Formats: sequence, structure tokens, C-alpha cells
Amino acid sequence: MTEEKKHIRPGRIYEITAVSNARIKGIRSLAQKKNRDNDNTFMVEGMKLVRDAFDNGWKIETLVYAPGSRAGDQARELAARARVSGAEILEVNEKVLASMTRRENPQMVVGVMRQQWHPAPAGIVDPASTWVVLDRIRDPGNLGTIIRTADSAGADGIILVGDTTDPYSLEATRASMGSIFNVPLVKLTESQFLDWRKRWPGIVVGTHLEGAADFRSIDYDSSPVLLLMGNEQQGLPPSLAENCDRLAYIPMNGAADSLNLAIATGVMLFHMGKRLPPPGNEK
Amino acid sequence: MTEEKKHIRPGRIYEITAVSNARIKGIRSLAQKKNRDNDNTFMVEGMKLVRDAFDNGWKIETLVYAPGSRAGDQARELAARARVSGAEILEVNEKVLASMTRRENPQMVVGVMRQQWHPAPAGIVDPASTWVVLDRIRDPGNLGTIIRTADSAGADGIILVGDTTDPYSLEATRASMGSIFNVPLVKLTESQFLDWRKRWPGIVVGTHLEGAADFRSIDYDSSPVLLLMGNEQQGLPPSLAENCDRLAYIPMNGAADSLNLAIATGVMLFHMGKRLPPPGNEK
Repeated sequence: MTEEKKHIRPGRIYEITAVSNARIKGIRSLAQKKNRDNDNTFMVEGMKLVRDAFDNGWKIETLVYAPGSRAGDQARELAARARVSGAEILEVNEKVLASMTRRENPQMVVGVMRQQWHPAPAGIVDPASTWVVLDRIRDPGNLGTIIRTADSAGADGIILVGDTTDPYSLEATRASMGSIFNVPLVKLTESQFLDWRKRWPGIVVGTHLEGAADFRSIDYDSSPVLLLMGNEQQGLPPSLAENCDRLAYIPMNGAADSLNLAIATGVMLFHMGKRLPPPGNEK
Repeated sequence: MTEEKKHIRPGRIYEITAVSNARIKGIRSLAQKKNRDNDNTFMVEGMKLVRDAFDNGWKIETLVYAPGSRAGDQARELAARARVSGAEILEVNEKVLASMTRRENPQMVVGVMRQQWHPAPAGIVDPASTWVVLDRIRDPGNLGTIIRTADSAGADGIILVGDTTDPYSLEATRASMGSIFNVPLVKLTESQFLDWRKRWPGIVVGTHLEGAADFRSIDYDSSPVLLLMGNEQQGLPPSLAENCDRLAYIPMNGAADSLNLAIATGVMLFHMGKRLPPPGNEK
């Protein structure tokens, strides 16, 4: 045990049987964005997400589980791990747990932790660096899927511009499949973003239905890339499109007017493939 | 007016004010798969989808709308167009319409039409041909998004293998954004598929977390491609993986175990880009 770890005091354990308990109500209230914002915390549901949080070094503040539930051993193990790291443990029954997760398929563990927001990146020099910029994204499932995709593609992080859906909502964290714990998130107003963008050392590529360049014709390799994606309804607004070095379009066939936003982001990031090993290696 | 069109008799119009009306109940019941299967029909919600159906030559059997609603002129226009094409028209009030669409944001038009299932393709010779094969896909939103993506990428059609979520569900048609009307769908059991696959004239590429080939190292251009995608939970089962010529993996960074299925399909199809114009053309 390291010197530092010795100083962590194991968290307290509370047994709670009432759905109306104040602590339980407080956690349940985190389903609403305004309560998450006030408290700067969020909750995630399920063993996988709680385990991913641990594995990525996030500190669990409160862990709720049902010792007598079917999930049994695994939930107990996770609770012990959380307690040692200093988390407060709430031992509840399945009814209380179900009241918090509100799903057809109630989860056996709920974790509460602090939101992490990063400052806008500075001093980037690595030409493999990629940041994804999402303008006023609306759909939490899309956002979670984009976080997962950006993580898979090795992007450095995501900048959320303007009034966006909350990455710390239940739906977004679930769709991220744990990548929420591995992708730095930055939140900027449009004017903060435009100001920061002036100091971006690489190219700024916006995807745009009326872009001038086929996305496959752009050189993404020579410098860091800032990839701007418009929102689900309107695409990139002129105020952002004007500030791109290149506007890229993804050519399309068929009856579809456009690609789903998460799909378009995935196509762009994996085409760029900036942190992927060179192709052609057979395993 | 063409000779053929002259023979279509305009559909009848019924005014319906009761939520419990038998016709309305019948349409509402199409929210359930078993009723869609029995009737071989499905319903779509909203002006965009109904218009896309028309534009792709689908015959609307019944169109429901509220003449007095906010959607006013556009809905009336669509109803007139439907009637001329022989559709039965149900004029209802907003309450009846809301009872059918069951959403926070009730739609102003509902269309009912026949499901279209295509035979497995035969006689393919065009090397640009691509068919997407989905094994037991579970999530209707994923399926709709894949239909939209396959349409955008110019795939010839989609083969659904085994017990799958229904492409004609409300959620899938909505996520397809109208591409449901432009992408031929085929439904096969696994054994029917394996039998048909023997006659496929090109290469069969399966995506697989443990594939041997980086997806960027495969030649997709010389022959038709059959692209096999496993389902959300398990990926490709051995029975299908064994019948692929190549197993491709998408290299990944980060904490994510895998890509979302629709994202993986999009990355593959746009990388192949078989029906896209050659890159490098600036608009």
C-alpha cells in the first residue's frame, strides 16, 4: 500500500430500506439536469459503468447496491472496492434500487461521482491530435455514441459548444458504454470557442452538406485536426462554418438527405484514422 | 394523366371522431409486431415519412389526418394526393390522431401501407454491388440508422438473418428517416442464408473483433461485396464467421470494447465507398 493510499479512510456504510430516504431522493434527483448542474455530480447505472469509472481512476462518492440481490458477489466486490477508496456505501433492497434506476431492467449498482470538465486544450503540437467539436448537440444517445466513437478512434477529446444535451445524463453515459470516463470533455460558449479557435495550431475541418471538399480529398495527416460537426437539425451554422479552413462533405446516394450525426462523426474519424496503427497489418 | 392512372378510383373518405372506432383501433394495433405480421402492413408517422413513401412509389392504403389541425394545408395536400392514388382517407380530430401516435409530439399524419420483402438477390454481376447482412439485430433504432446509412452509401439492400427486430416498427422507420422506402429488404433464416451465400459471386467480408485483417487492408473494389455484421451483444457467431472469405477488424483505441453496430457499419460502407464518386473532386 502506498503512503498516499494509507490516508484514505474507508467510507461509511448506511443501510437504507425506505424509498423516501433523503439520501436516496437526492441521488434519484440526479436524473434531472438542473440537479446535476447544482450539485456538479452525476449518477451511472450498472456494474459495467461503475467498474469502468474505477478503472479510469474516477472517484466514486457514493455507491448504492442491494447486498441480497441476484447480482450478489459481483456487486459486493464492487462495493468493497468503492468503500476502500473512500466512497460512502448505501446498502438498500431491490425495491429502493429499482426506484432509482427506473428501468424495465433495473440495475444492481448505482454510482455517484463528480462531473469532470476540462479546460480548452492548449499547447498542442502532436500532428496526430484530434479534437471533436460538437455544436449544440441535442440527442443524448447521439452524444454518448459519439463519445464512444471518439474514444475508439483515439480522439484527444470533445468540445461541446453552446447549449447542448448533457453528457452526464443517464442516457448519454449509457450510450457511451464507459467511454465517458476516458474522453476529456470541454464546454465552451460559441464566442469562447471562436476566440480559442484562433490559437488552434492545425487545420479546422467542418463537415457540411454543402462543403466544397470531398472528405476523402483532405490531408489530415500533416497537422492536428479540429473536426467540427453541426447539430442534428441544422448542421453547422454560418458563424462556425466561416471559421473552418476546410468544409468537407460526405458524398451520398439514395433517398437519405444526410447521415445520422454519430455515423457521420464515425465515418470522418475512422477515415482520418490519426491514432490508428497503419493499415495492412494482418494480425 | 396517363392511361394507367385513369383507372385508379379515388379512395373513400371517412370522418371519424371516436378514439374507439374499429378502423382506428386496427391501425393503432399496428404498433405491435404480431399485428403487423398478421396483416403484412405497417404504419408510419409524420409528413416526412408519408411523403417519402409517395416519392419512392409506395402505395398508401390508408391515410389518417386531422383537417382542422395546425399542420393544416400540408396535411390536406398530402391527403388529396393519397386519395387520388386510391388511398382510403380517415379524417379525424387531433385527439384521435394523438391516440394513434402516442408521443409527446404527436404527428399530424399517419400512413398505412403493405410491407415489402424482396427475394434474395440473384444474378449479381456488377462489382460495385454491396449487400449488407445483419445477423439477428436487436435494436430498432440501430436497424433504422443502418438502413439510412446503407441507403446513403449506395448499398443495394439489406439481408436480415434469423430472428431480428422489425424494420417496420415505428422506431425503426423513424430512425431510417425515409430510407426504409428506398432500400430493398430480404429476410432469411440462417440456413437459407448459408445456402444462398454459396452462390454469391463476390467476396464475403465479416466484421469481427478478432478478425485477421485490418478493414483498410482488404480489396473491396474488384468484385461484389457481401458485408456481414454481427449483432449488438455477440458479434458474428462462428456459424457465420466460418462462412466469410475475410474477417475484418476495425482497430480501436481507448476504453471502448467495440463500436456501436450502426457506426461500425457506416465506417465499413463509407470506407468501401463502392458507389460513391471517386474522391478528390472539389465541388
